[in-house]
Amino acid sequence: MRRFAIIGHRAVTDPGFSLNDMPGSAGRMDILCRCVNSCFFLSHDLRRDVECYLILKGGPETTILFKGETIRSLNPDERSAGALIKKALGKTCGSEFIESSPGVFIRHGGLERLISEYPFAVLDESGDDIRAVGSLPENLLLSDHQNLAEEEEALIADLPRLSVGPQVLHADHAITIYLNEFDRRSA
Amino acid sequence: MRRFAIIGHRAVTDPGFSLNDMPGSAGRMDILCRCVNSCFFLSHDLRRDVECYLILKGGPETTILFKGETIRSLNPDERSAGALIKKALGKTCGSEFIESSPGVFIRHGGLERLISEYPFAVLDESGDDIRAVGSLPENLLLSDHQNLAEEEEALIADLPRLSVGPQVLHADHAITIYLNEFDRRSA
Repeated sequence: MRRFAIIGHRAVTDPGFSLNDMPGSAGRMDILCRCVNSCFFLSHDLRRDVECYLILKGGPETTILFKGETIRSLNPDERSAGALIKKALGKTCGSEFIESSPGVFIRHGGLERLISEYPFAVLDESGDDIRAVGSLPENLLLSDHQNLAEEEEALIADLPRLSVGPQVLHADHAITIYLNEFDRRSA
Repeated sequence: MRRFAIIGHRAVTDPGFSLNDMPGSAGRMDILCRCVNSCFFLSHDLRRDVECYLILKGGPETTILFKGETIRSLNPDERSAGALIKKALGKTCGSEFIESSPGVFIRHGGLERLISEYPFAVLDESGDDIRAVGSLPENLLLSDHQNLAEEEEALIADLPRLSVGPQVLHADHAITIYLNEFDRRSA
């Protein structure tokens, strides 16, 4: 299994956001939607061996999980992922994942719990080049358009850091390049 | 200059399409919008040395050009590129590019003319691996979710073919990987 976790620092946790204004009033939810796309879509197929965790921090910290193994009703456009996020946020949940639609789950809590469950590496422009590392970590943590906050940096201080190349990229582009490296190593 | 051209086989040429339904009634315009994103966006910056040509074939064949050098008012979300495409399609144009908004241009005509103007390579899953070629072609032609039509294949029969890896990817993901290879070679 390959896992990507993306922190949405301002991404709202209220399901009332508009699919017509995800960059604005939904707190850059568009970034998270594009990350969902990058995690799963192949040409006419889905990556079934990927899980995508969205950590929403623009409200009580909440995690939404997309599982490639069982996801349904996901199309590549931003609105499609956005609609599944809205539906998940409309579900009453506690500290354990509950399913809001096939392959989509939601729970309260965020980064601290997730990195206690799986060993993550962190995308970092000054990290080791993914083409040069011996073994490519299965789980990668990324941030949205904002840098990690001080308390987040403290949580991940001991995690390995990886870079996807010489330019600093959007999270969804970095996921695409990371998966391409996986594809090449397992081909 | 690096140029990407993407064929939208069903992408409409009528500006009346809805930004709320780009995958449906706009003929998979969402794919072209994501390609625009992949061509230009860096973290907090734009790639100024890229041009993106969208070849719309869901009406009288039309080409829309986004120039990184002068583009303005482009945000990363699909609706942003979609709005600039709508505005371009609303402009009366002939066979030469006219500017519809800063850095966005439109003209009638499509693939045949474009490949007579610039030497393109073609994205093809059975092509040469981009990591293995000596010199990376500056101009890459890609298709949307449909394979190239017979008459398109005839036009490009003699062009070099390149692959970005072992999996068949969406056009926007392929552009991201291609640009990453450029970035690495020029770093």
